[in-house]
Amino acid sequence: MLVVELTSMEASSQSQWFMESYNGSALMIKIKETIFESDGIQKIQIFNTEDFGRMLVLDGKIQLTERDEQMYHEMLVHVPLFMVENPKKILIIGGGDGGAVREALKHNPDEVVMVEIDRDVVEACKKFIGIDRGALNDARVTVLFEDGIEFVRNSKEKFDVVIVDGTDPNPVSQSLVAGDFYISASKITKHFFVTQSQSPFVQQEYFTEILRNARKGFDFTKVYINFIPTYPLGLWSYTIASKEQFRVKNEKILRRWNERMIETFHYNPEIHIASFSLPNWLKEIINSIKD
Amino acid sequence: MLVVELTSMEASSQSQWFMESYNGSALMIKIKETIFESDGIQKIQIFNTEDFGRMLVLDGKIQLTERDEQMYHEMLVHVPLFMVENPKKILIIGGGDGGAVREALKHNPDEVVMVEIDRDVVEACKKFIGIDRGALNDARVTVLFEDGIEFVRNSKEKFDVVIVDGTDPNPVSQSLVAGDFYISASKITKHFFVTQSQSPFVQQEYFTEILRNARKGFDFTKVYINFIPTYPLGLWSYTIASKEQFRVKNEKILRRWNERMIETFHYNPEIHIASFSLPNWLKEIINSIKD
Repeated sequence: MLVVELTSMEASSQSQWFMESYNGSALMIKIKETIFESDGIQKIQIFNTEDFGRMLVLDGKIQLTERDEQMYHEMLVHVPLFMVENPKKILIIGGGDGGAVREALKHNPDEVVMVEIDRDVVEACKKFIGIDRGALNDARVTVLFEDGIEFVRNSKEKFDVVIVDGTDPNPVSQSLVAGDFYISASKITKHFFVTQSQSPFVQQEYFTEILRNARKGFDFTKVYINFIPTYPLGLWSYTIASKEQFRVKNEKILRRWNERMIETFHYNPEIHIASFSLPNWLKEIINSIKD
Repeated sequence: MLVVELTSMEASSQSQWFMESYNGSALMIKIKETIFESDGIQKIQIFNTEDFGRMLVLDGKIQLTERDEQMYHEMLVHVPLFMVENPKKILIIGGGDGGAVREALKHNPDEVVMVEIDRDVVEACKKFIGIDRGALNDARVTVLFEDGIEFVRNSKEKFDVVIVDGTDPNPVSQSLVAGDFYISASKITKHFFVTQSQSPFVQQEYFTEILRNARKGFDFTKVYINFIPTYPLGLWSYTIASKEQFRVKNEKILRRWNERMIETFHYNPEIHIASFSLPNWLKEIINSIKD
């Protein structure tokens, strides 16, 4: 059975599949059972899958699976944090599953503030996935259930690193990719701002919108990439930004890696440096973005 | 429609999809039309897809799409060829679509020998895909329709670089990953041997088998990785091997890149170097392989 008519697909078994489509392609994940479903600010679904452990889906988009979430979270968090000498105060916008907070705590900060608009996501993840591994209850962590855009606009504090762990642009997260957001974020960022920036291969519009708008708030931006199997066609991008010029320096990253003695599944200093090397087609997309 | 019963899937349209599954996950590609089908040594299918141009499928496995084949072929061919000062004689086992030969010719060799067991693949690709862009008719190219294993075993010639562009291990290509093959290949390799080595994430068994057996023929092996969207979950690996110790040296690659003035879609010297940086989980797999 190679070419399947979706209307009359004969399955080799009676199994259920979750499907996420991106224009002319789609990823299917075999489901063992649905563990949780609710419909609030966002539609939340948690599945037990055959090959990827538990899986969180928001509004139809895979957010994480137990099997590969570390690839995503480690590159989101450790890349900016290893670029700062002494990251003490960290802000995370979104990230309700707690994976980003878990990784941030490995750098021994004084304070991590997580601002997540959807309390249901946090509660469902704590109860049914638990990838925060207790991080959200850590004494150094403050969890605020409010709009991240409002928080960033009104905050009088400054953070060493600001991390945006948002969903695909949707009605809830759309304003996280608007120019105004990056201008406000720039005011509260001491060293680095980083955001996931979608797949540059199948979601080029989102990717370029994020990068174009990030440049409104920050004079210096760089893109880095990583392989995340359950994200659209496996390639994911992050955009890191600063008000000051910066270079990714091997020796500093390596020294801090040796000092901080962090355990990781995916991240290491080599991958950190390598993730800033981009293929020609992606450089061309980035160079063609006009303000 | 998020969770679909394959037995009663309601499609948003009457469209046809091609599906390739890997244990608990699957990739679906939307098809506009079937252009060619035949059933010889291997089952050959060529489709016109909605988002990826034309697509070649052998025995149910996607071999290439027009949209991303360069990511695969450029990394397969340019990585070994830029590691050799003067690659004059190149052997390609498999590669019936002609993409690898096309890239090899950019290095201005004296001779490229391609040994492809399945004449039907070559003819169907020439007629319906044409990604060789005439390379297979180039005067410097010899195309032999015979068993690559036999050729390698019996050849008295030596090649600067030997490239294996085979399919997933199947009845036709199985012996391309056996230990004997690498021992024979080693005898005819002057500088480097390279083979595609499957997805280390979802095809770990194939990956480790290839690497374990390659070590029987070559004392020194390294793995490099690349993002290829239409291959299983987007991550692909290559194994490069030599009888002599080797390091991937930035300056040499860069100098040769500047000298040879090759045009590429994906490859550049930065990506070449970066592709040898592996995440922790993959290093662990590689380190755990016992002879």
